Amino acid sequence: MNIVDIINKKRLNKELTPEEITFFVDGYVQETINDYQMSSLLMAICINGMSYEETSNLTEVMLHSGDTIDLSMLKGIKVDKHSTGGVGDKTTMILLPLVAACGVIAPKMSGRGLGFTGGTIDKLESIPGFKTNLTNEEFINQVEKIGCSVVSQTGNLVPADKKIYALRDVTGTVESIPLIASSIMSKKLASGADKIVIDLKVGNGALMKNLEDARTLATTMVEIGKRHNKEVVCLLTDMNQPLGNAIGNALEVKESIDVLDGKGPKDIRNLVIVLATIMVSLGLNISTEEANKLVLEKLSNKEGLKKFREMVAMQGGDIDAIKVSDKVVSIKSKKTGFVKSINTDMLGEIVRKLGGGRYNKEDNIDSSVGIVLSIKQGDYILEDEEILKVYINEKDIKVEEILECFEIDNTSGGVLPLVYELIK
Amino acid sequence: MNIVDIINKKRLNKELTPEEITFFVDGYVQETINDYQMSSLLMAICINGMSYEETSNLTEVMLHSGDTIDLSMLKGIKVDKHSTGGVGDKTTMILLPLVAACGVIAPKMSGRGLGFTGGTIDKLESIPGFKTNLTNEEFINQVEKIGCSVVSQTGNLVPADKKIYALRDVTGTVESIPLIASSIMSKKLASGADKIVIDLKVGNGALMKNLEDARTLATTMVEIGKRHNKEVVCLLTDMNQPLGNAIGNALEVKESIDVLDGKGPKDIRNLVIVLATIMVSLGLNISTEEANKLVLEKLSNKEGLKKFREMVAMQGGDIDAIKVSDKVVSIKSKKTGFVKSINTDMLGEIVRKLGGGRYNKEDNIDSSVGIVLSIKQGDYILEDEEILKVYINEKDIKVEEILECFEIDNTSGGVLPLVYELIK
Repeated sequence: MNIVDIINKKRLNKELTPEEITFFVDGYVQETINDYQMSSLLMAICINGMSYEETSNLTEVMLHSGDTIDLSMLKGIKVDKHSTGGVGDKTTMILLPLVAACGVIAPKMSGRGLGFTGGTIDKLESIPGFKTNLTNEEFINQVEKIGCSVVSQTGNLVPADKKIYALRDVTGTVESIPLIASSIMSKKLASGADKIVIDLKVGNGALMKNLEDARTLATTMVEIGKRHNKEVVCLLTDMNQPLGNAIGNALEVKESIDVLDGKGPKDIRNLVIVLATIMVSLGLNISTEEANKLVLEKLSNKEGLKKFREMVAMQGGDIDAIKVSDKVVSIKSKKTGFVKSINTDMLGEIVRKLGGGRYNKEDNIDSSVGIVLSIKQGDYILEDEEILKVYINEKDIKVEEILECFEIDNTSGGVLPLVYELIK
Repeated sequence: MNIVDIINKKRLNKELTPEEITFFVDGYVQETINDYQMSSLLMAICINGMSYEETSNLTEVMLHSGDTIDLSMLKGIKVDKHSTGGVGDKTTMILLPLVAACGVIAPKMSGRGLGFTGGTIDKLESIPGFKTNLTNEEFINQVEKIGCSVVSQTGNLVPADKKIYALRDVTGTVESIPLIASSIMSKKLASGADKIVIDLKVGNGALMKNLEDARTLATTMVEIGKRHNKEVVCLLTDMNQPLGNAIGNALEVKESIDVLDGKGPKDIRNLVIVLATIMVSLGLNISTEEANKLVLEKLSNKEGLKKFREMVAMQGGDIDAIKVSDKVVSIKSKKTGFVKSINTDMLGEIVRKLGGGRYNKEDNIDSSVGIVLSIKQGDYILEDEEILKVYINEKDIKVEEILECFEIDNTSGGVLPLVYELIK
């Protein structure tokens, strides 16, 4: 077999065999295939696409490129939750203790953030003392004891994805449904859960900008799941504005606690209830109605919050020590009108610039900075009324740049739905 | 400007600006753009194509990536001839002295062969003593004196093409009309001729396998010529069988001399007359009828042959010392029937394996080996009749492999035309 023949085949839009897919993935990991050959092939895949069969085979080969996690010692159905990432998305932190309180087994490996969206691990590490680098044994023990744990990805999990992803990032080959699907699914399948719930974000603050692409990605991932005998459920949700009001690590943890405490912004609360219901229904094998009842009960009796405190304590964190900056600037609207749209990417980028996110893997994060919105899309705002608060520390802000993220208009343009559809 | 943005733009099938094209070509030559980024972009160009405007701009930037040749000290119209390459294609060697005998100024820079087709320089170097590395001054002086000279490419001519071509070869991005057109035309324009005649080969022994692609390539090159104020004429000719009977360097020189001597196979003789007529018509600014008359005259009075001897002598070669191997094997047909098709690529490959071509740039060539066909496509052959002679030296042949190149059938399938069409 020869890599140039494989590239030519995909350039001519022909289907690659499982052997050819194994050849190029393994060859790339083992460095017998060069970056420049891989990037040429990735571009051909981006433009010409891949069939379900090819995408599933690619996922299979990638998932076996390194270690896989064995969770079989945990009794019951293990449910994993993944979000494709968005600004202000703190659902994982809230969901895991909430569904664990309902009796679901929820072990979770999570990533750090690179880009404008942030990662769950970074958010949780804003809790002083919180340890995310548990050993496999500590991780399993904790899940056995309290039902949930969040740890950072350990070991040599899916090295093929790490290498391919780094190359895609610098060769204009990020936007490809089969490549995105195989990247997500290889990691999910390697993590050992039985059922997988994916919160697929759609909108100007997400990788998927429109519903059509999001639907294709969701269908692809569900299909890969089927071919690997794993139940995958995708919920397509809106990311045309930040989720909740808080953006920034410590601020997001505080908002998560609010939600578990029965308070917090309506949108994040509603999304948590929908996702938790799906997870509980899958994890306990009960109807949606029963699951929904259970979730609402655990929210109102604060058992989800209790579980969150338990999880944080077991991982060494001190909730009362969470710090947000006390340098707070209130930004006010210069116009009266409806908040027609919010440039979500840009808001995420502004928080990153404040020190709240990374530009390079090695960058330190300032957990205490961020933004808390005072308005949401569709709201009516008066001139001089507060749009948001900025929590700053060492870096300064440009007020104009922040105001530019909000389109204020005479007409509202309606309010976007939070949940678009369920694909399973 | 940012290379990833440029790659993404082409991935989404948008037109690149002249500034973006300059940015990626110059960046690649200056090594601020990596191989893996360039190959990803090249694949996007392969699949999504380029407009005439983009292809012409790409040619322009490439042609100025290094030295250009100034032929303005030579009086009159300088005519260049290029062949896209085929098995047994020895037309350049015959044409240059023939049109020079007619009064055309024909300076020619030529390449060495890599692949199964061979280059004119390699063919001429089978003449003992023949020097192809003349200085610019020697080259110009010779053309001034006798009207023609063939030299190997010197100096830093179109380094962007050298670098891009080497990458295309190993990344499955060879088959792209804009990339082929800009590669050929940047070299032709940098070589300084006023008018350019291109023999564009079509068929199983050529890069262009079908007429439709060949037409697109021809139209693209003619269009690039127009945008650079150079007259370009493309002749689409058949390469579904070797041109002439001889394949192999010394054998091809001998056949060329035969043609100039009024003998030789009909196909190569006819093609030479057609191409020479076009070159003479362009070079002397006369009608096709007048040009054709002149060409036939110089063939029948052997002045073309005289000019060839003059050119070889001036470049230090000794025609009488040309050597072909005296180990000759006659290969006979195992079937009776029509020669329906000839696998031309494979015959070229067999001569390369005999030592007649290169696998790496540094390989030495054995000029004395090769093949001389006894039949052509459409001929009727009897069992045990000779198909061809093989001239071997150190390497052995596989008779079966040679016979497999010929499809012998009860029906002839007709005889393919030699010249398809003229595009200008």
